[in-house]
Amino acid sequence: MLQINGQRLLSHIQKLGTIGHDGPASRTRLALSDADKEGRDLVLAWMRELQLRIVIDQVGNITGLWETEENKDQAPVLTGSHIDTVIHAGPYDGCLGVLAGLEVIQTLQEQGSRPRRPLGVTVFMNEEGVRFQPDLAGSLAFAGGITPAQVYACIDKDGLRLGDELARIGYLGTAEATAIRPYAFLELHIEQGPVLDAAGIQIGIVEGIQGLHWQRVTIEGKANHAGTTPISLRHDAGLAAAKVNVYARTLAETYGGVATIGTLALKPNAVNVIPREAVFTIDLRHPDADKLAAVEQALDEFYTGLHQTDHVQISVEHMTAFDPVHFDDRLIQLVEDAAQKRGYSSRRLVSGAGQDAQMMARICPTAMIFVPSIGGISHSPDEYTPDEDVCRGANVLLESLSVLATRA
Amino acid sequence: MLQINGQRLLSHIQKLGTIGHDGPASRTRLALSDADKEGRDLVLAWMRELQLRIVIDQVGNITGLWETEENKDQAPVLTGSHIDTVIHAGPYDGCLGVLAGLEVIQTLQEQGSRPRRPLGVTVFMNEEGVRFQPDLAGSLAFAGGITPAQVYACIDKDGLRLGDELARIGYLGTAEATAIRPYAFLELHIEQGPVLDAAGIQIGIVEGIQGLHWQRVTIEGKANHAGTTPISLRHDAGLAAAKVNVYARTLAETYGGVATIGTLALKPNAVNVIPREAVFTIDLRHPDADKLAAVEQALDEFYTGLHQTDHVQISVEHMTAFDPVHFDDRLIQLVEDAAQKRGYSSRRLVSGAGQDAQMMARICPTAMIFVPSIGGISHSPDEYTPDEDVCRGANVLLESLSVLATRA
Repeated sequence: MLQINGQRLLSHIQKLGTIGHDGPASRTRLALSDADKEGRDLVLAWMRELQLRIVIDQVGNITGLWETEENKDQAPVLTGSHIDTVIHAGPYDGCLGVLAGLEVIQTLQEQGSRPRRPLGVTVFMNEEGVRFQPDLAGSLAFAGGITPAQVYACIDKDGLRLGDELARIGYLGTAEATAIRPYAFLELHIEQGPVLDAAGIQIGIVEGIQGLHWQRVTIEGKANHAGTTPISLRHDAGLAAAKVNVYARTLAETYGGVATIGTLALKPNAVNVIPREAVFTIDLRHPDADKLAAVEQALDEFYTGLHQTDHVQISVEHMTAFDPVHFDDRLIQLVEDAAQKRGYSSRRLVSGAGQDAQMMARICPTAMIFVPSIGGISHSPDEYTPDEDVCRGANVLLESLSVLATRA
Repeated sequence: MLQINGQRLLSHIQKLGTIGHDGPASRTRLALSDADKEGRDLVLAWMRELQLRIVIDQVGNITGLWETEENKDQAPVLTGSHIDTVIHAGPYDGCLGVLAGLEVIQTLQEQGSRPRRPLGVTVFMNEEGVRFQPDLAGSLAFAGGITPAQVYACIDKDGLRLGDELARIGYLGTAEATAIRPYAFLELHIEQGPVLDAAGIQIGIVEGIQGLHWQRVTIEGKANHAGTTPISLRHDAGLAAAKVNVYARTLAETYGGVATIGTLALKPNAVNVIPREAVFTIDLRHPDADKLAAVEQALDEFYTGLHQTDHVQISVEHMTAFDPVHFDDRLIQLVEDAAQKRGYSSRRLVSGAGQDAQMMARICPTAMIFVPSIGGISHSPDEYTPDEDVCRGANVLLESLSVLATRA
């Protein structure tokens, strides 16, 4: 069975990981920074070594296409991810998907393969959304969900315009962002969660992306003396917020998905004063849109009940809402078969994090392959995926892309 | 039936309330400030008008004694409270008890009364504890619970020494703090809580002071991605803290007393990150020492359970612990009889706030009279007790002190 060159892939990950170093084992390559440019230049050089046809589009997405005279009129099979990072990042997130894609092409080229369809690797612009919002902007534009003009208008905290920064680093391309319409898209990524590692599973078959709703909730009670105010006469905003947290967990247990209260502030925040105000955020995610709606509905009813029982006013601001994404069933099955053929243990799961693949799913059959993140850690210098898992993931990508590229 | 002069008492409260004005209806007289000196000077002048024998002790407590040749060797019946305030205070807290005491003496003098025991009014130094800690320092020294040297050594946030400030404002007295051993002590005070107002009751018969325990609790979990970390693999410090809050309320419902989580901070406090740390305070109060201990015991067991179920580390710092104080049964009954005799509705209750009377209870039979605080508000310019309630409280004080002063 054909195998990717693991040593070569790992050395490429290591090399790209040295760009933007900001610590002995840490790097920062914010989108369209000098470090991002340096990373792009390196990947572009590797694409050129493979004689790929380079397409840089209006929003800075880079696609390297391995075409032949025979297949160049066919819709290409694409893989890819991103190479921009968060602050103090690990070496895998995003980079793995891009570099494994190049490794697959190189392996197939060395083996003398003549695929029926072009194979391509795309580096999407600004996946992380740390410097410029929205995140996933490059893949969103690729899928036609945002115009280049809208992308250019994004401003970073120093007042710099995305369009200007794209030109400055030399990646303001001329191809239309929506020019390439792939036959299929498949992305390899680290899990960024603990499921595979905890279960000792080698390959994750990603069925989709969870829907995400963010609420900012303000509970108004009444500040009063913690010693002299009997339980029955309290309007304790902090206690009401605590009840929401506990209830949100039971909702996740009942409906599936996850619910997280990550931020909370009490006022006046004094030891012996009953909180008059609690402001918190709640992050709700579920792979099923109906169940996500049911969770929000149940929360709304809980707020109404709290208003009665705890004598507090509750207002809810809906900050963000993304519907769940379901990947293509046939592509999911193809990846699962590939993992099985290679003899790797696998499990189907849903991505809790947003991914470029969720945008690509709008325009073509899409799926993802996950490899384990040790301890579930990502977006951290401690992010780690063992070498064997990196290679297994790349081999499942090889197997899957090889099959896809032969399809009519 | 003998009545105090309500108009006179109210005008005294109003006049003392103008000293230290820091807003149209707000005043600040921190202990041993210039405003406190001015307030002391005014009260001292009123004491002198009543021909009281003035005793200023080593820690700045002022006692005005109405003695006669016949009764000067008897232990005096004392009343009183304090005239120092918090920042932006109302006009009643503390001042009511001092000025009503003077009003009672003046009323009895005018009526030609010849009590069997001296009657006295004490102004205790630094009850509030805002500028110098500990609070209740004057009454604590009066009861022998702290030495003058310890009191002098207290330092405010500007580095000023209490002893120096006492001398500076001219109230470093020469009498021993423990010189006066009263026959009984009775304090009139606003409730500082909503119970009487909510129930429409005119007089509170205070049976004691709640015990108070403060804990600072640190819960350590693990920060992780809110989207990718399944419920079963979370170590959510914020959720664990919420569970403590909800459980503390059920403990108060089960055991009585009150429990309040007034401060809470999460780390890293990000919308999409599971909190790795929650630090909060919990204010526990109960009139019964055994039940307060049972509540803390139940909390300890709850922490142990949380460690198991929520996979978090919990550490508890015990910040403050005051035992409950039980006032004198005969004195409580005497006050209750006095309210009944006057035809006022009354209810027995326990003070949720600390009071000078709790220190005096260490050395003599002690009780307190409460009058309603509208809306339970105190320590605020909005603190308000209707005039009729002020007069009712002073009349119960008159009735009670009159009876006590005739006792052998």
